[in-house]
Amino acid sequence: MLIEKIKTPGLSHLSYLVGSGGEAAVIDPRRDCEIYVDKARAAGLEITHIFETHRNEDLVSGAPAVASMTGAKVLHGPNSDGDVVYADTAREDDCFAIGQLEIRVLETPGHTDDHLAFALFDSAYPEKAVGVFTGDALFVGDVGRTDFYPDRKEEVAGRLYDSLQKILALGDQAIVYPAHGAGSVCGSGMAEREFSTLGHERLNNPRLQISDRAAFIRAKIEENHYQPPYFRLMERLNLEGGKPAPRVMRPSTVALAQLRKLDVDHVVDVREPMAFASGHFPGAISLPVGMISAFAGWFIGEGDSIALVASDQSQLASAMEHLVRIALDNVAGGYVGVVPAAAQGERMRSIPMIDTQEVARRLDEDGSDWTLLDVRDADERASAAIDKSQHIYVGHLNERWAELDRQRRYTLMCASGMRATVAAGWLDSKGFERVDIYLGSMGAWKAGKR
Amino acid sequence: MLIEKIKTPGLSHLSYLVGSGGEAAVIDPRRDCEIYVDKARAAGLEITHIFETHRNEDLVSGAPAVASMTGAKVLHGPNSDGDVVYADTAREDDCFAIGQLEIRVLETPGHTDDHLAFALFDSAYPEKAVGVFTGDALFVGDVGRTDFYPDRKEEVAGRLYDSLQKILALGDQAIVYPAHGAGSVCGSGMAEREFSTLGHERLNNPRLQISDRAAFIRAKIEENHYQPPYFRLMERLNLEGGKPAPRVMRPSTVALAQLRKLDVDHVVDVREPMAFASGHFPGAISLPVGMISAFAGWFIGEGDSIALVASDQSQLASAMEHLVRIALDNVAGGYVGVVPAAAQGERMRSIPMIDTQEVARRLDEDGSDWTLLDVRDADERASAAIDKSQHIYVGHLNERWAELDRQRRYTLMCASGMRATVAAGWLDSKGFERVDIYLGSMGAWKAGKR
Amino acid sequence: MLIEKIKTPGLSHLSYLVGSGGEAAVIDPRRDCEIYVDKARAAGLEITHIFETHRNEDLVSGAPAVASMTGAKVLHGPNSDGDVVYADTAREDDCFAIGQLEIRVLETPGHTDDHLAFALFDSAYPEKAVGVFTGDALFVGDVGRTDFYPDRKEEVAGRLYDSLQKILALGDQAIVYPAHGAGSVCGSGMAEREFSTLGHERLNNPRLQISDRAAFIRAKIEENHYQPPYFRLMERLNLEGGKPAPRVMRPSTVALAQLRKLDVDHVVDVREPMAFASGHFPGAISLPVGMISAFAGWFIGEGDSIALVASDQSQLASAMEHLVRIALDNVAGGYVGVVPAAAQGERMRSIPMIDTQEVARRLDEDGSDWTLLDVRDADERASAAIDKSQHIYVGHLNERWAELDRQRRYTLMCASGMRATVAAGWLDSKGFERVDIYLGSMGAWKAGKR
Amino acid sequence: MLIEKIKTPGLSHLSYLVGSGGEAAVIDPRRDCEIYVDKARAAGLEITHIFETHRNEDLVSGAPAVASMTGAKVLHGPNSDGDVVYADTAREDDCFAIGQLEIRVLETPGHTDDHLAFALFDSAYPEKAVGVFTGDALFVGDVGRTDFYPDRKEEVAGRLYDSLQKILALGDQAIVYPAHGAGSVCGSGMAEREFSTLGHERLNNPRLQISDRAAFIRAKIEENHYQPPYFRLMERLNLEGGKPAPRVMRPSTVALAQLRKLDVDHVVDVREPMAFASGHFPGAISLPVGMISAFAGWFIGEGDSIALVASDQSQLASAMEHLVRIALDNVAGGYVGVVPAAAQGERMRSIPMIDTQEVARRLDEDGSDWTLLDVRDADERASAAIDKSQHIYVGHLNERWAELDRQRRYTLMCASGMRATVAAGWLDSKGFERVDIYLGSMGAWKAGKR
Repeated sequence: MLIEKIKTPGLSHLSYLVGSGGEAAVIDPRRDCEIYVDKARAAGLEITHIFETHRNEDLVSGAPAVASMTGAKVLHGPNSDGDVVYADTAREDDCFAIGQLEIRVLETPGHTDDHLAFALFDSAYPEKAVGVFTGDALFVGDVGRTDFYPDRKEEVAGRLYDSLQKILALGDQAIVYPAHGAGSVCGSGMAEREFSTLGHERLNNPRLQISDRAAFIRAKIEENHYQPPYFRLMERLNLEGGKPAPRVMRPSTVALAQLRKLDVDHVVDVREPMAFASGHFPGAISLPVGMISAFAGWFIGEGDSIALVASDQSQLASAMEHLVRIALDNVAGGYVGVVPAAAQGERMRSIPMIDTQEVARRLDEDGSDWTLLDVRDADERASAAIDKSQHIYVGHLNERWAELDRQRRYTLMCASGMRATVAAGWLDSKGFERVDIYLGSMGAWKAGKR
Repeated sequence: MLIEKIKTPGLSHLSYLVGSGGEAAVIDPRRDCEIYVDKARAAGLEITHIFETHRNEDLVSGAPAVASMTGAKVLHGPNSDGDVVYADTAREDDCFAIGQLEIRVLETPGHTDDHLAFALFDSAYPEKAVGVFTGDALFVGDVGRTDFYPDRKEEVAGRLYDSLQKILALGDQAIVYPAHGAGSVCGSGMAEREFSTLGHERLNNPRLQISDRAAFIRAKIEENHYQPPYFRLMERLNLEGGKPAPRVMRPSTVALAQLRKLDVDHVVDVREPMAFASGHFPGAISLPVGMISAFAGWFIGEGDSIALVASDQSQLASAMEHLVRIALDNVAGGYVGVVPAAAQGERMRSIPMIDTQEVARRLDEDGSDWTLLDVRDADERASAAIDKSQHIYVGHLNERWAELDRQRRYTLMCASGMRATVAAGWLDSKGFERVDIYLGSMGAWKAGKR
Repeated sequence: MLIEKIKTPGLSHLSYLVGSGGEAAVIDPRRDCEIYVDKARAAGLEITHIFETHRNEDLVSGAPAVASMTGAKVLHGPNSDGDVVYADTAREDDCFAIGQLEIRVLETPGHTDDHLAFALFDSAYPEKAVGVFTGDALFVGDVGRTDFYPDRKEEVAGRLYDSLQKILALGDQAIVYPAHGAGSVCGSGMAEREFSTLGHERLNNPRLQISDRAAFIRAKIEENHYQPPYFRLMERLNLEGGKPAPRVMRPSTVALAQLRKLDVDHVVDVREPMAFASGHFPGAISLPVGMISAFAGWFIGEGDSIALVASDQSQLASAMEHLVRIALDNVAGGYVGVVPAAAQGERMRSIPMIDTQEVARRLDEDGSDWTLLDVRDADERASAAIDKSQHIYVGHLNERWAELDRQRRYTLMCASGMRATVAAGWLDSKGFERVDIYLGSMGAWKAGKR
Repeated sequence: MLIEKIKTPGLSHLSYLVGSGGEAAVIDPRRDCEIYVDKARAAGLEITHIFETHRNEDLVSGAPAVASMTGAKVLHGPNSDGDVVYADTAREDDCFAIGQLEIRVLETPGHTDDHLAFALFDSAYPEKAVGVFTGDALFVGDVGRTDFYPDRKEEVAGRLYDSLQKILALGDQAIVYPAHGAGSVCGSGMAEREFSTLGHERLNNPRLQISDRAAFIRAKIEENHYQPPYFRLMERLNLEGGKPAPRVMRPSTVALAQLRKLDVDHVVDVREPMAFASGHFPGAISLPVGMISAFAGWFIGEGDSIALVASDQSQLASAMEHLVRIALDNVAGGYVGVVPAAAQGERMRSIPMIDTQEVARRLDEDGSDWTLLDVRDADERASAAIDKSQHIYVGHLNERWAELDRQRRYTLMCASGMRATVAAGWLDSKGFERVDIYLGSMGAWKAGKR
């Protein structure tokens, strides 16, 4: 008997392989899904069922591909806007045996209408559930977003409240297996810890401390969430069933001469932010490899062609993996080596880093042609902000850059300098030439006050 | 924050790497312990504490080696018979911070006098323990053995009862992290499942259903356990601190000519039982690679020199790993290729496999020179046995073979034929020439009745 | 600049990845070909050309799949019987640049009519070829077979002679990169060593010591080679372009109950021969995993459905890989665990191993109902044989078993006992019940004489 | 039979595992040497001999460690200044059998007095050598340095000439197995290609085109080579036998607070140069991970304590490996995350990148307080240089920085900007505050002219 968590960094996505007695189930598989089949068979298990907690909006499901490799049945919740093409509909109390294990369906709408949770029982130790796959309903330290149906905000928040009561009724002893961990775009308050139980959540999860249904609804409605444009693409692909991932998860490599000729929609520099700032191809945008999952979907549209620029081949491969998982993988080529390109005569652009002292000096100076632009999210901004700074969320710069003035000087800031670099790179690619980055950003500002 | 289970097959030993905020702890490390340091550092953690739930009797601790690689402090329970040389003594309610995590000591004697459990708290979510490392006190589906102090049987069973109450008092929500899973020699009733919580155990673990202390003691006293001779070696090494594992976990390879010249205490054939039965070097004993952890300690003594015979190099490497972990690793060489040896003129011995039909025929015949020898353990024997069969536990053949008669015919049986082959190989190596194996054994016997 | 040999065990197939200046070529890729694309890109190279030395008869080409993953061009020699669908035709002296390297085509018919060799030059060090890809024309220690055109034996042997002179004219300094190493079915005299040069071959290769063309032709004509039936399938697939390999190279796992229900053409036991002999499913044939490449194509026909029986999951995966590479991969399921099956009541068959003493005794006895059946190849048989033994090549038993008499006793022998077990298993599956295996076989016989 | 090249990037060091018939030899093992023993045994070989072509000056030998793991004999050439403690002395024509292979010693002084080459014969194909391990005598495209005995320049160059004739006499057919490839500090003219033969070198290697002994000596004497200070440490360790590599090749990880407290001799930033330029800890020097092998030995002295700063854990591990191989591995800790440190209030320093336009502008301006400092090597400098630039080799800045003036402005340049960043980092750490880097450097300058 096994339960193995397969974690996808970047997305902070958690999927699970559960097996017993030669049979296995996968919960919420990702697009590059050979790993589930390979691990299952290496353990002497054959995947017979694929359970999806809901139609994911932040990644492409691997369920159709796993089903085609194994013949397994896909189970999905009821959808009002049409059936998931590759799946059967599972309903409350449906039961599925995986060897000696039993998986029982709980309808748990709220985050999405079709959301299911799956309670896990061991038929040899049958008293109460041993665990529960909570999808995006319940996380460690947080509960699911309820902002996907703007017209029905209160209703869906209330439905989530009810769903959580249903889940909690499984008992304190049940281990919680959520679909995301800290860092996911599917929640902002998740704990860094990835192991918990219903009992521990009942006692500690801040959202579960709100016992009153109405208060819970009010709290949820007040939350700020962002919906990057690629969410709609994910939703459509996860209804229709997306194409399988490429067989080799590396982009084709291109030389400088070829790179120059590629006529792509985006040159995406995936090196670390400080390297990008020091020098990058004119027109390139900055999406450090670890930030692709969270931010690529703001700046890259469906089908957009991409050239990648990286520090080394393994970074290229990682970038490709992240892009494949969100189906923004129309990658025409990958190039390694910015210094070598410079040594072949390629002009590079750079963006200066400035420090707290300089920011403070400029604030004091109060020059009318300079803006300190804070790109953090609304919650961070609400908790503390530098006086006189202005605010546009980094993701919103995908469209709102047009509101800015190319003649002005802008210093980009966030919590540390990472998102500020992404923002600065975006403006730089749009022809803003008087941009710099506050290295350390809000963290440094606060530390400087001490 | 991470908690990673490192599982050692064969021993069914579970150790844990726990980390937060750049710091990490290891619970019950095994001897080949680079894995803990490597995994910790790969995750940006430095091991600062090593916790031992008790002085292990079935494997060599890697605590002194991890400590010497990292400078971490080793914590161990109080020992009446002298201090663990490489460790500090931890006491009830001692607390240790690992980043944002907190580990709190519970003295939980019973399985051994020095046994500790470690409750795990997350200081950011402080209501009750999120988990507990239960060592050999509480397993999934079973509790620890209490047969190590034969003079104090009732006392220690009672102490275990009390310790379990103390552990259960942590609450249903706590995840159970035991030191062993199914297949370990440290318990016979463990569930195949390796994930559970105190709540699920409280409701399902058969031993925890006995609410009466006296009844619990009676049940424990009636259990049958075996203590292979190497337990005493482990205990001594784990008091003194054993030598580190070799840097390369493969035996030196030897050619046939060299193998012939090696004057070793044991030629150990680690191929699968059926291959051994078909042909093996005269004098070789059978310890299939997956059975080494459980049975080598019965037949191989401290310091005994060993030659290994395997099907391929990776099997040799696995065999070596198993032997290193129990410090029976004085391996003079490893040889691959029984068929090639035969083709060089080496005589091989074989042991026939017989089936249910033949066993039934012989039983009917009731020949006076034949014995059906059942080598299962006492519990298996008690639950069902073939009439007229005799019983010696496989491990006890290490000495009790001398009671048998080389002139008689013996058919070895167990539950399937695996341990029967080990037993047959042992007798074969002692000069018994009229031995065969009941393939399928008790399983086939029962199936045949249907 | 790199040249990397990718070796496929079993087939003893050698393919090559050659790269320079961001570009790469593959020579003779195998069917499971992601490895070439992955390795190339990991090294910053993009595959632009795929060179095939000839239409392989012993494995499925990966050229069409690599081409479809990379857009690379496939180059193949001229075929009289129709064009290779996925390739362009390369001609004598055609040149292709791979970065700073240059690949020049030599038409080298003989082994096959379409055979090419590829001389490798480094344009920065341009004096003479640095290496040559010799395909199946020239091996280390041997030259190619010339038995594929039975009507034109002398002609093609002569053409090979001429081709070899053309290759040798590249100079002693050229490193030899052949398509096969020792163990391949494409030659019997290959050296175990896989590195050589034209100079070293010119001085040492036995076939190249025959300076006279007519003598060379005579020598080639006298050679004995076998053509397993699957060669024709390979040739057709390599003309048309076969299907890509499965994305996960493990068979689906089946439990015993499912195995019983599978109605397959062959149950193939891939465990080591001695384990098979000790016990196997009735009807199963023996193809130890390392012998699949050489012998499966004799016993398994195109499209035949297969169930695999193995010792463990990794053995199943290896077996699958071997089968995929020769397109005999209609595998309905893989099962692990013969002893467990026996313990569930499954009857097993066994085949005894006998030794030199017993063989000698039977030969002396000269019983009229017993045959010592030698299954080695004709060359081995010619060099030494046991008096009174009979001869059928192991591969020919696929049809010639019908000539044998189920009432007789047969002892199978080969050089060691490996092929004898394959042969014994085949007869056993055809209902021969009085079969045994001479363990050690000819090797033991000779050693016994000493 | 196998010959496997084990390549060490950074050092561009090539070592070899050679095996046949169960026995193996290693040629020129590196310090982290488990790989040889593991690979040998995985292939069924036991290492019996270790051959050293010479006392390496650029890396720590793993010969003593391999010998202690396997009992193998170490063979080394004759040393006038005392014996290599862990080795036996091999002499001209000594022969050693490795299974069916034979290794024959050639004394080949020149690069060093103790230098040996090892000719490789296959006793089954005995006509002439199949290969030769040429150490640092002969490379692909170059020959060894002869600058290690400044008082005997002509003598040793002449001895190398004679040694090369001896090697070439083995015949065109011999494959060349050198101890280094392109990128090594042991030669500047090596081909990027790592495969060649004596015949191909005889025809193409520029140094072997000089047929006249006196002309060869003149050419060698005119070469420019650099001897980083750590060469002396390597030589001493390789006489005495260095300590084994650590069992885990990762530095201990430290948090920012600990990093601040470490009182180390060097904070070494191993991130890519552009990231360093954008921001780094005050006092840190820049040694990008791929440049450590070549440049650490200039700036870090024996026993110096080090803290590493990296982009991620795998970069830390790579840096550690490089340092271990040259015994500059007194690493007190490794830290990941410059942006996070900035966000905790750590001040960072940055060094601007400037482009060709700006360099040209400054050159035109001819300001008296500015120097364009070229840190390339003497050969590069001789081939082309920018007017008015000054020259100090990057390695010589370890001492010659003291000649420079902290009040002046310096722009560092090399061929591309990589070494310029190392140089700029060194000056920055010495308190130079008016330093910048010419991104693209000589390459960009030349491209700009076009």
